[in-house]
Amino acid sequence: MKKRLITLCSTFIFCVGVQAQEFTPKQLEQVKQVRENALNSDLSWQLLESITTEVGPRLPGTENDKKAVAWAVEQFEALGFDKVWTEPATFPHWRRYHESARIITPSEQPIHLTALGNSVSTPEQGITGEVVLFETLDELIAAPQDSLKNKIAFINYRMNRHVDGNGYGPAVRARNNGAVEAAKKGAIAYMMRSVSTTEHRFAHTGGSHYQPGVNKVPATAISNPDADQLERLISSGHSVSVNINVQSEDLGEGTSYNVIGEVTGSEFPNQYVLIGGHLDSWDLGTGALDDGAGVALTMAAAKHIKAVAQPKRSIRVVLFAAEELGLWGAKAYFERHAKSLGNIVAAAESDFGAGLIYGFESNVTANALPIVRAIAKQLAPLNIEYIRANAAHGGPDLIPLRERLNAPIFALHQDGTDYFDYHHTANDTLDKVDPIKLKQNTAAYAVFAMMAANSKNKITNK
Amino acid sequence: MKKRLITLCSTFIFCVGVQAQEFTPKQLEQVKQVRENALNSDLSWQLLESITTEVGPRLPGTENDKKAVAWAVEQFEALGFDKVWTEPATFPHWRRYHESARIITPSEQPIHLTALGNSVSTPEQGITGEVVLFETLDELIAAPQDSLKNKIAFINYRMNRHVDGNGYGPAVRARNNGAVEAAKKGAIAYMMRSVSTTEHRFAHTGGSHYQPGVNKVPATAISNPDADQLERLISSGHSVSVNINVQSEDLGEGTSYNVIGEVTGSEFPNQYVLIGGHLDSWDLGTGALDDGAGVALTMAAAKHIKAVAQPKRSIRVVLFAAEELGLWGAKAYFERHAKSLGNIVAAAESDFGAGLIYGFESNVTANALPIVRAIAKQLAPLNIEYIRANAAHGGPDLIPLRERLNAPIFALHQDGTDYFDYHHTANDTLDKVDPIKLKQNTAAYAVFAMMAANSKNKITNK
Repeated sequence: MKKRLITLCSTFIFCVGVQAQEFTPKQLEQVKQVRENALNSDLSWQLLESITTEVGPRLPGTENDKKAVAWAVEQFEALGFDKVWTEPATFPHWRRYHESARIITPSEQPIHLTALGNSVSTPEQGITGEVVLFETLDELIAAPQDSLKNKIAFINYRMNRHVDGNGYGPAVRARNNGAVEAAKKGAIAYMMRSVSTTEHRFAHTGGSHYQPGVNKVPATAISNPDADQLERLISSGHSVSVNINVQSEDLGEGTSYNVIGEVTGSEFPNQYVLIGGHLDSWDLGTGALDDGAGVALTMAAAKHIKAVAQPKRSIRVVLFAAEELGLWGAKAYFERHAKSLGNIVAAAESDFGAGLIYGFESNVTANALPIVRAIAKQLAPLNIEYIRANAAHGGPDLIPLRERLNAPIFALHQDGTDYFDYHHTANDTLDKVDPIKLKQNTAAYAVFAMMAANSKNKITNK
Repeated sequence: MKKRLITLCSTFIFCVGVQAQEFTPKQLEQVKQVRENALNSDLSWQLLESITTEVGPRLPGTENDKKAVAWAVEQFEALGFDKVWTEPATFPHWRRYHESARIITPSEQPIHLTALGNSVSTPEQGITGEVVLFETLDELIAAPQDSLKNKIAFINYRMNRHVDGNGYGPAVRARNNGAVEAAKKGAIAYMMRSVSTTEHRFAHTGGSHYQPGVNKVPATAISNPDADQLERLISSGHSVSVNINVQSEDLGEGTSYNVIGEVTGSEFPNQYVLIGGHLDSWDLGTGALDDGAGVALTMAAAKHIKAVAQPKRSIRVVLFAAEELGLWGAKAYFERHAKSLGNIVAAAESDFGAGLIYGFESNVTANALPIVRAIAKQLAPLNIEYIRANAAHGGPDLIPLRERLNAPIFALHQDGTDYFDYHHTANDTLDKVDPIKLKQNTAAYAVFAMMAANSKNKITNK
């Protein structure tokens, strides 16, 4: 690391000099102040407690979703943000009414199952069939045509645990496309081992898709212990039949709202740093980790900045609508602002729980790297390492941005080792968030957003 | 400890001499052999896997309960026990059909709730009322008469975690008697924070009672995160109304069966060591920790003994029926055998999960202590400490025995630090048992039962 530093800065003094060009000593003093304030403040915890308790689950289109929008507007205003507004976003409105399942043979026992988002209903009495086990989605795809007639397809793929959640991508394929592939083979329903790293008996919901021209079959996920049980029964030679009962409804197009709070820049109000999370959650838990934490900590970060000094550029906290059902709020936001996306000087979304942030990574032009390094230096006291790859992807709600523009995107990498123990389950509740870690997250977002808004030169795209 | 040894044995040689009187060198060699065999065998795991997978939940009176009885008979016979038989036991047959709950105001959200055993149903659409929070059962008892009219009483007492589970007693009072006390004050339903040490979102069921002359109201328990949520809402000044829906049925008197497998003693067949667990379980999980483990490890322990040498006295593995609903199998067993309880030379029940056994304790006459110390010496290699208090209580199914007789009762104390994370929840599944710890448990029961059956002198009561 020493060697790289020497390569980057021919002398230590020159290196300090580069950073000093971007930030005045007074600004750096203010950054320190904001960092300390955030570490000593309960604000993000109070916001998180409030949204998860007073509102609770926030499935798009529900009464609680409306309450969440009103809550966010009210909180932004109470915190003294300079501008607060909402922007509509439409989405496919889906509701879950009932879900249950049980093994019928060889021995009756309940299965902890959840419907995947978008799943169609079963008949009222449920749907019963023999379970056919596949280890992977690819094995299901390779099954002979019509081989699953009157059967329930079950993909038993188990997600791997990793600090950066890299087990999610391979596992989520079966959630996105499993029901379609099962239906293509004639299955009457689809069931998967949850995209999960926990041994506790929670089923994980999440988005799923149908395909035009392919029969829509109920799409479900079961807990790891239940998948283990099916695996044991089937591998010991039993014919296992299961009854699945899902009652849900497709309510057509719904409308919700992105809620935006802005701390307006004193010199370049149109240029802005975008931070935020998504306001909606799945209906099973109270959306504490996903994504109450992201909502609360980015709101609090901007407030901590404003309390010390109005930034040169604006800071927009964007709380996206209907992320869980397909990034609908983000799509609407970046479409509505398509012509001014160049005004975004930095964007980062917090949507990976509230584990400690361990790494800071950019995705910017080489010209902007001195600014990035200066920010990284101010994040180091929070035990955050500078990841030099300069290839940050950002959170899911930044995907529609990236599709339009190589935007200056940042990642504040959280430790997600246990994130998929709770993700999309009933067990995603306030007590799963560590207040100390939430403070560190808040401080990191505050330092990052403040400095990105205040650098002498504007951070630019690749 | 040295000092005590010197007090007990005037010289080391004399001390060995005392033990040698009770067990021959050959017998001690056989004990060692059994211990090693048990530590190297998967038998208890195979039995546990089988009962939790092939049978699953085993609520007394259900089809699965019958399957469990048949399973136990079949396994005892397959293992070559000398005698296998069943004895009937009646119990109040109760069934759970449906349970759900939700907060209605201030914001609709689901509550993870379970009906306590014996609970009556709500009307079909559930029962709705404002929640009144009490921190303890005593606070509820102290509430003014009729102060809970149309209200739902909620006891928010949180159980403490401890290696020996000593937090259970104080917490379980609210489960046993809460519904009665709530009804006495006019409440329409009773709800309690589960008797639980977990932060995961599982409600814990368990036995509860009504009282003649007191209105029967639905008796329920909610998960710790849900209790936290109610506590936050109520303490922030909200009026919180909740809908509880329980559908259950009192089916009158049911009959199930204790299943007994005996390894018959070669010299004193009528004298016997009683070990065992209970065959039934609650309906939510698959009864792995409670009490599949106790069933499996005591069956396996007796088998390991028989495989090395037929004991002098008999070893009876008693798998009690309907423990969860009120020790009905145990009551029937000790009543049926009331006249021959003096034949029991040692009794121990495993009904506290499958944590490592850390302590061995007796409850015998002073005359028998040399035998106890000799057993303790053979348990020491399993990392089990000799607890000299000589005040063992034994498992719950030994309560009806103790009520009749100061029987020679033994405790093989398990580490129960996390037992009440799972106890009586849907999350009590096979994966929660550690195969290595189960082997240690099996070896300990085998050593204990073998030596208690083979001592020169009969172990006697206090």
